[in-house]
Amino acid sequence: MEIPQSIIAQMNQWRRDFHAHPEVGWTEFRTASKIAAYLEEQDIDILLGKEVISENRMGLPSQEQLQKSYERAIKEGADTKYASHFEGGYTGVVATIPGDLPGPTVAFRFDIDALPIFESIEKKHLPLAQGFSSIHDGEMHACGHDGHAAIGLALATILSQNRSSIEGVVKIIFQPAEESVRGAKSMVEAGVVEDVDYFLAMHIGTGVPENTVVCGADGFLATTKIDVEFSGMAAHAGAYPEEGRNALVAAAQAVIAMQGISRSSLGDSRINIGTLHAGSGRNVIADHAKLQLETRGINTVVNTYMYEEVIRITEGIAQMYGVTATHSIVGEANSASSSERLVTLLTEAANKSGIETVIPRENFAAGSEDATYFMEAVQEQGGYASYSVFGTELAAGHHHEAFDFKENVMEQALHVLTSALLTIYQKERE
Amino acid sequence: MEIPQSIIAQMNQWRRDFHAHPEVGWTEFRTASKIAAYLEEQDIDILLGKEVISENRMGLPSQEQLQKSYERAIKEGADTKYASHFEGGYTGVVATIPGDLPGPTVAFRFDIDALPIFESIEKKHLPLAQGFSSIHDGEMHACGHDGHAAIGLALATILSQNRSSIEGVVKIIFQPAEESVRGAKSMVEAGVVEDVDYFLAMHIGTGVPENTVVCGADGFLATTKIDVEFSGMAAHAGAYPEEGRNALVAAAQAVIAMQGISRSSLGDSRINIGTLHAGSGRNVIADHAKLQLETRGINTVVNTYMYEEVIRITEGIAQMYGVTATHSIVGEANSASSSERLVTLLTEAANKSGIETVIPRENFAAGSEDATYFMEAVQEQGGYASYSVFGTELAAGHHHEAFDFKENVMEQALHVLTSALLTIYQKERE
Amino acid sequence: MEIPQSIIAQMNQWRRDFHAHPEVGWTEFRTASKIAAYLEEQDIDILLGKEVISENRMGLPSQEQLQKSYERAIKEGADTKYASHFEGGYTGVVATIPGDLPGPTVAFRFDIDALPIFESIEKKHLPLAQGFSSIHDGEMHACGHDGHAAIGLALATILSQNRSSIEGVVKIIFQPAEESVRGAKSMVEAGVVEDVDYFLAMHIGTGVPENTVVCGADGFLATTKIDVEFSGMAAHAGAYPEEGRNALVAAAQAVIAMQGISRSSLGDSRINIGTLHAGSGRNVIADHAKLQLETRGINTVVNTYMYEEVIRITEGIAQMYGVTATHSIVGEANSASSSERLVTLLTEAANKSGIETVIPRENFAAGSEDATYFMEAVQEQGGYASYSVFGTELAAGHHHEAFDFKENVMEQALHVLTSALLTIYQKERE
Amino acid sequence: MEIPQSIIAQMNQWRRDFHAHPEVGWTEFRTASKIAAYLEEQDIDILLGKEVISENRMGLPSQEQLQKSYERAIKEGADTKYASHFEGGYTGVVATIPGDLPGPTVAFRFDIDALPIFESIEKKHLPLAQGFSSIHDGEMHACGHDGHAAIGLALATILSQNRSSIEGVVKIIFQPAEESVRGAKSMVEAGVVEDVDYFLAMHIGTGVPENTVVCGADGFLATTKIDVEFSGMAAHAGAYPEEGRNALVAAAQAVIAMQGISRSSLGDSRINIGTLHAGSGRNVIADHAKLQLETRGINTVVNTYMYEEVIRITEGIAQMYGVTATHSIVGEANSASSSERLVTLLTEAANKSGIETVIPRENFAAGSEDATYFMEAVQEQGGYASYSVFGTELAAGHHHEAFDFKENVMEQALHVLTSALLTIYQKERE
Repeated sequence: MEIPQSIIAQMNQWRRDFHAHPEVGWTEFRTASKIAAYLEEQDIDILLGKEVISENRMGLPSQEQLQKSYERAIKEGADTKYASHFEGGYTGVVATIPGDLPGPTVAFRFDIDALPIFESIEKKHLPLAQGFSSIHDGEMHACGHDGHAAIGLALATILSQNRSSIEGVVKIIFQPAEESVRGAKSMVEAGVVEDVDYFLAMHIGTGVPENTVVCGADGFLATTKIDVEFSGMAAHAGAYPEEGRNALVAAAQAVIAMQGISRSSLGDSRINIGTLHAGSGRNVIADHAKLQLETRGINTVVNTYMYEEVIRITEGIAQMYGVTATHSIVGEANSASSSERLVTLLTEAANKSGIETVIPRENFAAGSEDATYFMEAVQEQGGYASYSVFGTELAAGHHHEAFDFKENVMEQALHVLTSALLTIYQKERE
Repeated sequence: MEIPQSIIAQMNQWRRDFHAHPEVGWTEFRTASKIAAYLEEQDIDILLGKEVISENRMGLPSQEQLQKSYERAIKEGADTKYASHFEGGYTGVVATIPGDLPGPTVAFRFDIDALPIFESIEKKHLPLAQGFSSIHDGEMHACGHDGHAAIGLALATILSQNRSSIEGVVKIIFQPAEESVRGAKSMVEAGVVEDVDYFLAMHIGTGVPENTVVCGADGFLATTKIDVEFSGMAAHAGAYPEEGRNALVAAAQAVIAMQGISRSSLGDSRINIGTLHAGSGRNVIADHAKLQLETRGINTVVNTYMYEEVIRITEGIAQMYGVTATHSIVGEANSASSSERLVTLLTEAANKSGIETVIPRENFAAGSEDATYFMEAVQEQGGYASYSVFGTELAAGHHHEAFDFKENVMEQALHVLTSALLTIYQKERE
Repeated sequence: MEIPQSIIAQMNQWRRDFHAHPEVGWTEFRTASKIAAYLEEQDIDILLGKEVISENRMGLPSQEQLQKSYERAIKEGADTKYASHFEGGYTGVVATIPGDLPGPTVAFRFDIDALPIFESIEKKHLPLAQGFSSIHDGEMHACGHDGHAAIGLALATILSQNRSSIEGVVKIIFQPAEESVRGAKSMVEAGVVEDVDYFLAMHIGTGVPENTVVCGADGFLATTKIDVEFSGMAAHAGAYPEEGRNALVAAAQAVIAMQGISRSSLGDSRINIGTLHAGSGRNVIADHAKLQLETRGINTVVNTYMYEEVIRITEGIAQMYGVTATHSIVGEANSASSSERLVTLLTEAANKSGIETVIPRENFAAGSEDATYFMEAVQEQGGYASYSVFGTELAAGHHHEAFDFKENVMEQALHVLTSALLTIYQKERE
Repeated sequence: MEIPQSIIAQMNQWRRDFHAHPEVGWTEFRTASKIAAYLEEQDIDILLGKEVISENRMGLPSQEQLQKSYERAIKEGADTKYASHFEGGYTGVVATIPGDLPGPTVAFRFDIDALPIFESIEKKHLPLAQGFSSIHDGEMHACGHDGHAAIGLALATILSQNRSSIEGVVKIIFQPAEESVRGAKSMVEAGVVEDVDYFLAMHIGTGVPENTVVCGADGFLATTKIDVEFSGMAAHAGAYPEEGRNALVAAAQAVIAMQGISRSSLGDSRINIGTLHAGSGRNVIADHAKLQLETRGINTVVNTYMYEEVIRITEGIAQMYGVTATHSIVGEANSASSSERLVTLLTEAANKSGIETVIPRENFAAGSEDATYFMEAVQEQGGYASYSVFGTELAAGHHHEAFDFKENVMEQALHVLTSALLTIYQKERE
């Protein structure tokens, strides 16, 4: 498939527009609206909002935050025709492009959310220098999802202009809330990949060098993100210490106990209590404490073991200290491995695309990604799934305030993905 | 001494003005300026700023906060002639009223700071109903120090108008930053009570019933207020957990260890870690944690024992976890007991003042007060010191957003204090 | 009452015989048999075994230990006529001496058990030098109860020989298992003091100087002695760590949590986990842990607070770690205060007895004694109770392997106690 | 090489003799003496005692225990001609059999120590039924080292009778103290394998089925066995709790902190505090605590990380609690992997030996073995090393009181090992 220069130029524009208007998970009202509007302009069928997102969403912001972000999106040009579908945090879009010929259903997935980070204001930071840095204080595209969204739009455009080459159906999935691994599960639950035979997820950067593509990035850890809160009873620490029920001490003891959950012989595990906030004043027995934590495991069995220990500890601590404990899962992802068939196809496609270095598989152990939900779902129904990484030079690491990537990686990705689609068709026919 | 009705009226006005413009410890720029200006108007000698406050001040707010509060004070009518003396957090004033006759030096101490509390906005809250509630968001006179300052001004006025009755010298001390027991030590270090023979501190409320005065409130616990910070090293919790140095876990372990400091057979002790804030993100090994805590003891020996254990634990934890620890004392008070001679004098004076119930001594164990610094200093140089409490009905407990007291208690205090002064002179002459 | 020199000589012999044959709590088979046999020889009525000890006994040794000690006692000359009543650990005796005249019931209580200590083998240790040191490895009268038992026998002898002077009834209570505060409760439950009007307990030594008597020793802390055991599941620590349920870690966490139970504003409290034994091998997840601990409190309310927190923690820990926890109370004593009336009587009697220094009351805070069970029971039924201490020079502190006292203190005690009895009668008649 | 039936019979007898006289690590006085005496009878050169064991020995028993075991060995027939060389715990023997032809130096290693376990007294336990169960209370060959020692003796006998077939030199190493991974390091330090080209270690059982041999058992975890002791200061828990320095609480906190050492991204790690013993009495602040613990790691880097954290924690805890801490390494082993060349040779030899199932390599992850010290030393000097396992049916698992194996596995091992030697020669000549 031809990739016209105009599409490349537009892809870069989209990316910069998204970069300037970053929206964190479940608040991608403007981003999703722009995507939806553009796709309809191209006569591409779309599903959006509740059609592609289930009601059950992990780590949803407060109604107040959702509302505030929604209003900002409208103010910044989101067409209410689309935005209203996303209201309340249903910020997903799925484009469907049926081909002229019969064939498999192939899905490409792009995540579109930003991070709660203040973007760098150093002069040498390119987005600032070139005038497209974030206009939203405390929000930033510091992981490249602005690029992902732009690639997805470009891919949709090209494919819709080449329907005669398409065999079967192509779906382009624009997923919200990948950060903190929240959004994928809701799209899977909404049935988005129920009919999918081939599923391709991708990422740019992540330490892979420029002009390099990893066709099968493996080893994602299964993970659960948990918020735990302890509520006790306040009391004056000097006058009536015995009348308090100390949530701060309970939380400290919980931290220590969770940190000490036994290793598993079944494989790698992780536990991290990332934040702890407790107490209101120095001379008051603390009546409230909140922990944000996560477990990980080489697979779901190990991660579940870790999770269950966390819950057991939480409940035991509550009893020990006469406090109440609540916990909620605010994010979740599985482990996953790319399907051999698809890795082989991608390797072949990447080699044809002229990328210098093509690595069939590499282990990205210790990170987590919720694309794994899609991958697992597709593999379980007999399909093939893969996760690829397109290398590029980074100005600073992912999630850093000075993060930036070289935009030409988007074009490389576009070449490989379109080429992969044709390779899939070719193999299907063999 | 006569107490004209006009003074009572003015005292209530002062109190309401201070109540409407609360300023937390070391930022009492407007309050201290108004006090200074009024005293000079009355031809009363004053010392202010660095003359009465040493450079060493515990729990000083940041320069930025000091500056912001200073500017607000100017905007709200603080005369820069006075305010400039207080700049940077030297917000104390001492009035000196020499009498016509020779005699002892008698000091009265009034604290003038507010609390970091949002004042109630319930309609039934009297300061709101009557239009003098706080105009400063997040600051409130919720402990009665607005009343204390007003009593101090009224007392100075009356005494300056009755110099012929004064034998020796009277000093009226307006102390900043009593909350969190910070200000008194700096005034003692500045020499404010070096020449004082009789020292009288007082408080309104504190659970004592209306029409009741406690002449010698004893049993204050010695206390030290400490901030502890741990700094470690961040790392990705999934990818490189072993590279982090976990300040959150260190802090949790410190909490547990401090909470477990052994009881002392030498008397009551307390430990409270009131707040703990640690970590930046769920998937990052926390590189920072901050604890606000306090120790108490029936006397300095026991409090010092508790304090030293806290420091020992802090340093041991730092070594255990390979993190660095810093700690700073942000408040301190001693235990103290009222001098028998002064309690007897006050009891006599109170009985003469027509207050219904006069309690010579009562134990206020478990609270802390930095007036104890003055008391200890005066007693050590052979003088007499006391702490009295004037009962009143409270709308809600001290430090509560709906705190309020019945203003007539101020008049009662004024009567007892002036009467006490004359009783002191009478006994001195015997 | 006359105290013949022959009784003094015999008292010393008894003491040395008991000292040479020490028996720890609930195994005083020989001691109690000797006491019973001697009393019957003197025609004194006795109750023994289950007549004076309830079935419910705290901290009872194993059946095996009881049996072994019983057999040893028989071998060492205990008459089975008496010993069989004590079998199984019912090792109490109560002598009853009715007087010829009507009057109150007065009880004297003496504890008779030894400690699990190896007696000193240094030549200068007087019991060794004079040939009456313990012949039981690992058992020793290191607290003076050998002396107490001897005083009790002498007192019974004298009183039975002076029935004409006795008004009402005298009871002499020989109590087992005072160490670890176990025995008194069982005697109270058996009804031993149900009819008692005056109750006098005593101790020798305890730091009181020679020729000094404290008539009312107050301030005993209420205490509960608790054993806690955690049972988990063993697993190979290298191969299957996740399959274990770690009782050692559970116990460690329990220790830390119990140590951190909040102070109480209601008064002094204590917690001590004195021993912890856990685990079977270095490379095995520990499946068992045992803690021996105690709580104390200035009164029953505070001690109960501490106890309940311990139980709460124990149960919470069990849940946290998926282990099972059991706990048992193995000792218990109350706080108690001597009755004013009896302290006055004793002071008068002591003054008449020619003892140099007579101290009416002294606070022995921080220790515990189960005589308090008798004291509380008698006071609750309207009677009077006291605890006196007879000073003496000690070779080494109580519970030390070189403990020894000057035997003349026994004669002093005998004088004061007989004198007290007569003083009681005199006051009753007034 | 022919293996005469008489040797098989004798091998079984040796095994049963060793089984009846088990000796734990560093006290194999009788076992080593019998081995030495027999070998000299066969005109085989031996080195023994300090010639093959360095002075530095981990986990050495007390002098008293060594002496007691030594005397028992003499009483049970150990010839003092040999035993005296082993006195003090130098219980190793190395046989050297030079061949008639030139060639490589090949070493076989057999461990000879027993375990501190009481052997089963159930009638169905075969060693009991057949009259060769342990006559040493609390010591038992529950891991098969009795069989290992017997195989070593049989192998030495056969080889010494076939010197014409030997090319180069064969060394048969009889190693003490393999349990708790203590003995190998001392033999390596004594230079026992300095000249070795091929090193073969073996084990029977370990879950491998009967008639099966694993030629290269890989994946041993590096491990360090550590004893930690805390010494504090005792104090009466009721009277002077603040005067104690609590070693029990320090130990509990250390347990919790060690249990919480962060996972490593570099690979599997383990921590286990297997035993904890602390305190002397319920009402005494504990002045002593002892922990027995172990760390493990997928390799030396990870194990060293774990070890260093343990030491850091130990030292920090000492500072926190004002106690002193000491630690000592009482065992150590590396991770190791069998050399491919030797695994191939062994596989070939095993196939020729008629064993049903031959598994070239299997991962025995999570266990530890100090043969790894020999393996690493030989591999580092350019030689080849392997660890094989000969399957057999077990009556109960290793280290269980009812452990027993089918003796025919010893004959199988003998066949494979002699065959392997010839295969080595054959390959060396190619």
